[in-house]
Amino acid sequence: MPEIHDPSKQNAVDMSRARSKTSIDVRDVRDFLYNGPAQWRRREQIVDILSKDPLFDKTQRTFATRKELYIRGQALTNRIFELQGILNWSPEDVNIALSVLDETLPIGLHNIAFEPVFRLQASPELFSKYASLIASRGILGCYLQTELAHGTNVNRLETTATYIPETTEFEINSPTLTSTKWWIGALGKTATHGVVQAKLILPGGKDMGPHLFFIQLRDLDSHEVLPGRIIGDIGPKALGGYATTDNGFARFDHVRIPKENMLSKFAGVTDGGEYVTPPHAKLSYGGMLYIRSVMVTTAGWLIAKGATIAIRYATVRRQGEIGPDGLERQTLTYPSLHVRLVPLISRAYVFIELGRALTRGFDALARGLSSGDTSRLAEMHVMTSGLKVLVSTTSIQDLEIARRSMGGHGYSAFAGVGRLYADYLPSATYEGENFVLDQQILRAALKAFRGLFNQTPGPSVDSLSPTSYYLRLLLDNKLLPPELSPESWTTPTTAILLLEWRAALLVHEMAQTIGAPDATVTQRVSRAVTEAFVAARVGEMIEALGATLRPRETEVVRKVYILYLLTTVESALVDLLSFGLFRATPTGAPPRSRDPTRALRMAIASLCAELFPEAIGLTDAFGLSDWELDSALGVYDGKVYETLWERAQEEPLNKTEVTEAYEASIKSILLRGRQMAAKL
Amino acid sequence: MPEIHDPSKQNAVDMSRARSKTSIDVRDVRDFLYNGPAQWRRREQIVDILSKDPLFDKTQRTFATRKELYIRGQALTNRIFELQGILNWSPEDVNIALSVLDETLPIGLHNIAFEPVFRLQASPELFSKYASLIASRGILGCYLQTELAHGTNVNRLETTATYIPETTEFEINSPTLTSTKWWIGALGKTATHGVVQAKLILPGGKDMGPHLFFIQLRDLDSHEVLPGRIIGDIGPKALGGYATTDNGFARFDHVRIPKENMLSKFAGVTDGGEYVTPPHAKLSYGGMLYIRSVMVTTAGWLIAKGATIAIRYATVRRQGEIGPDGLERQTLTYPSLHVRLVPLISRAYVFIELGRALTRGFDALARGLSSGDTSRLAEMHVMTSGLKVLVSTTSIQDLEIARRSMGGHGYSAFAGVGRLYADYLPSATYEGENFVLDQQILRAALKAFRGLFNQTPGPSVDSLSPTSYYLRLLLDNKLLPPELSPESWTTPTTAILLLEWRAALLVHEMAQTIGAPDATVTQRVSRAVTEAFVAARVGEMIEALGATLRPRETEVVRKVYILYLLTTVESALVDLLSFGLFRATPTGAPPRSRDPTRALRMAIASLCAELFPEAIGLTDAFGLSDWELDSALGVYDGKVYETLWERAQEEPLNKTEVTEAYEASIKSILLRGRQMAAKL
Repeated sequence: MPEIHDPSKQNAVDMSRARSKTSIDVRDVRDFLYNGPAQWRRREQIVDILSKDPLFDKTQRTFATRKELYIRGQALTNRIFELQGILNWSPEDVNIALSVLDETLPIGLHNIAFEPVFRLQASPELFSKYASLIASRGILGCYLQTELAHGTNVNRLETTATYIPETTEFEINSPTLTSTKWWIGALGKTATHGVVQAKLILPGGKDMGPHLFFIQLRDLDSHEVLPGRIIGDIGPKALGGYATTDNGFARFDHVRIPKENMLSKFAGVTDGGEYVTPPHAKLSYGGMLYIRSVMVTTAGWLIAKGATIAIRYATVRRQGEIGPDGLERQTLTYPSLHVRLVPLISRAYVFIELGRALTRGFDALARGLSSGDTSRLAEMHVMTSGLKVLVSTTSIQDLEIARRSMGGHGYSAFAGVGRLYADYLPSATYEGENFVLDQQILRAALKAFRGLFNQTPGPSVDSLSPTSYYLRLLLDNKLLPPELSPESWTTPTTAILLLEWRAALLVHEMAQTIGAPDATVTQRVSRAVTEAFVAARVGEMIEALGATLRPRETEVVRKVYILYLLTTVESALVDLLSFGLFRATPTGAPPRSRDPTRALRMAIASLCAELFPEAIGLTDAFGLSDWELDSALGVYDGKVYETLWERAQEEPLNKTEVTEAYEASIKSILLRGRQMAAKL
Repeated sequence: MPEIHDPSKQNAVDMSRARSKTSIDVRDVRDFLYNGPAQWRRREQIVDILSKDPLFDKTQRTFATRKELYIRGQALTNRIFELQGILNWSPEDVNIALSVLDETLPIGLHNIAFEPVFRLQASPELFSKYASLIASRGILGCYLQTELAHGTNVNRLETTATYIPETTEFEINSPTLTSTKWWIGALGKTATHGVVQAKLILPGGKDMGPHLFFIQLRDLDSHEVLPGRIIGDIGPKALGGYATTDNGFARFDHVRIPKENMLSKFAGVTDGGEYVTPPHAKLSYGGMLYIRSVMVTTAGWLIAKGATIAIRYATVRRQGEIGPDGLERQTLTYPSLHVRLVPLISRAYVFIELGRALTRGFDALARGLSSGDTSRLAEMHVMTSGLKVLVSTTSIQDLEIARRSMGGHGYSAFAGVGRLYADYLPSATYEGENFVLDQQILRAALKAFRGLFNQTPGPSVDSLSPTSYYLRLLLDNKLLPPELSPESWTTPTTAILLLEWRAALLVHEMAQTIGAPDATVTQRVSRAVTEAFVAARVGEMIEALGATLRPRETEVVRKVYILYLLTTVESALVDLLSFGLFRATPTGAPPRSRDPTRALRMAIASLCAELFPEAIGLTDAFGLSDWELDSALGVYDGKVYETLWERAQEEPLNKTEVTEAYEASIKSILLRGRQMAAKL
């Protein structure tokens, strides 16, 4: 009998061959992505420690109930703080450890929602009392904003905080079922304290709108819920997402808190009950801006995970046509597949770099805010809103592109991408619902447009901020959109200009038709404005590449960035064609095409064809370990089928050969059926 | 104290008001959707019986483990067959009962994959031995095609069926790890028998490619796996989907089966080992065509569920601006929301009707095939492939549109839409991966194009089948694409013609550039061809409406169908603009717009604005009970907040006030933190 070709043995061969063909220095690119080798090494050390600790084993996680996952999550959290003491980790190290865990832990809400709001807005007195307890997790917090019937529109929150001058206290109350605080992460079972968003009611019943109040929820010795509060978990989330987090509900029955518990750094109440006006109404957005700026980085690394898994699998998976080696072709070699997957790499690279810039911007904003300087707030608000919408929408789509690219096995829990998707999905809704943010971006764009043309002595480019810089194109009648040729797509300039023109013309159109807007223009304008902003930033990133990377790596990453621009242009084609921005000159040479978008599509296909042989190197550069990815299809050595087989053996249904359902049900079905058949 | 407005009381008021404002007769439209009142009544009776049986209670389902869900699923299945005996249900009644259950039950694979393949392809001998046992579920089956490393490309399956002339047996064998049958629904723990796809190897080693064989897997008395088979469950699926189904794996170690177990109605082996040629190579696709034709109907009802839930919630949910009644506006009144949701209704209505037509087509095909007539097979193959891609892609998107339209609560498991999404998601991959089917559709379109122009004496419209009828537009140089005006969008004609022109020009373009195709043209052509076919069918549906419905209902459903066409045109704008098919004449009247797509967008917005007051009636007409929807946000009476509250109280984490994680972990975190803070 001839020797049988064993595809599972081929996997490792294909993977190491792909790795050896990579032309870039993976370490150089990895250091670039991690902003230097020190950051990478620190992270690698922490991953190494955690992945060897049996408590952090992930193999049984897929089979656990939500309750077990919650309990496990707290054990992991506790262990990390224990390790902090043992290994003398810095707060930054702890954050790295929490982030590489790939768990939606309740402590995340303490760190990203509760503590920043407290630090930004607590009065000096409250700060000195609680700041170090919060920093060291001597108390655990949550941020109570959303209510059962009230989300984005904080002005309509029903929870009240009524000032009682007689005792200089506030009384927190939930007057209706629908005022129940709902969805609050870490509230259900974990948090001992919280910051509550409630309508401030002054003596005489004057409603001052939403303000923030610091409140204790559970007893610090018994962890029991304090009197006057009804608190619990809101139940499982869709798709099994966020299973580890106890999103909770809370009702307050006339709970009294001392006056100092108002977060009153920028707005307060005198003992007599007079309101002290805040210098800037939007100061309370500081916390949310921080969360949104972090979201860009998170999105980049999330796409990186999806891309790594999908590209590794597509490198070892052989399917369909027979190639020159007599085997079926590796699926990544099919243009229909690599044009879907290589752009994921480009979006990961762009978002990671963009997130870094944004975090720097937020740090500057926070320094300003702490001294009452709000001048950067409006621009930062527009920028983070637009980017939040863009990156959340994009990464949700990209994770699903990655999952679907893997065919049937992509639907296995062991593929790992479904879990990332389920946990990330609410990002389209939380921290500002995307459709609502789109409206704010639209308003800001119209404001910038009107501001520009209503200036005296006349419109000037100097008044334009980075988020509205595209409007300069409307200032000079002699400026014309770029003419297109197949060569237009080899450099970034044309793509960036086209995206800026699209934003400018859409905002102009919007201003002309404001009396009768169509129903989807808001999304179109919002997306166009944000993509023009990002395109300009990508242009800057391309310029800066040579300063960090060597020539070969610069050349490859440059193509990765250009691919980002070209695929963005492709996704904007309806707008570009509608406004006559896409006036391709059809070439006479064969193949004859009547499609003006063909040159762009061919350029994308050709960039992806150039880049896919580098895909293993470009994704290895993300530096994600097998433990982090937790994916049978994304294993570093390519042995996907062995791994799938081994993981399936762990399935609880396989612990007995005959299922309990046999005696309980299946036997009856079969017996009944045999009796029926005998009668026929 | 003034009376507090209670939003939760407003819910029921808003719902009954919306219901009373509906202008259509819901019963008439419901009968229309169910193809007559008898069908609807039968279904209602069965739903009534099941929903009152405590075994079919769904309230604890959300908290169950996968193993519990599997065991529960078998109990439900057993109960349905028990009820069949008690209530004298017909096989059709049993199918209704199984379908209204909203569970991905293993019995579904017996019914939709195993039994049809057996009935289509078993030899008369095998048929007489097993057909009634299969029909009465005296044995339970599965269909073993996919392998660990082989999906769509059945020609590369590794499992072998070697004919042994000495004993007139076949030997079924899994030569490698990767030849393990994988993903097979109902195989893991349920099925006693299966139909295996394996390469037929004749004496001398001649490989005849994949054929089907009937094989017993488990002992009928003990349910133990028979010798030579290794069988188990492949583990959990992504997003918690298909939890109730035991997708399984199987390896065969030289298992002998009698020669009569080959499904040899159309291809067989003589006792001596000679191959008997099948009359039509694709006869074995019959089973899959049936599954695909059922998928259109399923998709329609699935979108119906998502639409019902989302529209009911948007009717009672108030958020944002203050309306004339002093309350926040109902979210469905926002154009940005109803332009997203009303098109879901139109797609549900179209797919339900289309599915009915397709099932009729399949019945005719099956009658033909059973007598060896394969003339309808090629056309049916193209049609079902295209529709399968269209409806699976569309319904996945629509369920997510529905879920996301509900804001934060859409991410609760209690919203119910996430579960539908998780279970439906693999439809993009199973029964023909969508990207692979796209290639087949493209090939068929090119074949039709070439066939048309290579005819002697010359191209003739008579040679065109329904799936290629759009090609007639290329036959006459005098035929021109329609000119557009705002009035173009009030009747179906322009939209249908545009979609047919788009298909014709894209196929023409494809034929011109075949030597250098860009990487996405396959998807574009496939989608264009299918949408042209569907658009023409929708045109026929519109014509036929008046015969079934009264004038008011005809008028409203006609708008629903037209909306389907307009939103399809909108989604095709890149192609339409690229090929110059969208030559809108800009009107001089204000608001001045430079956007040629504006009239279409305004027409869609205006249709949605006309239809959203009918949305409760149009979705009530789907006739879906609260028990079927199992959604806290989609309850018939609109009391969404009470329902969410009640369901959250059932969460297992809420059974104790202090979580087990407190003693285990949280206490240590807090103590450690307090000690650290004290040191600062």
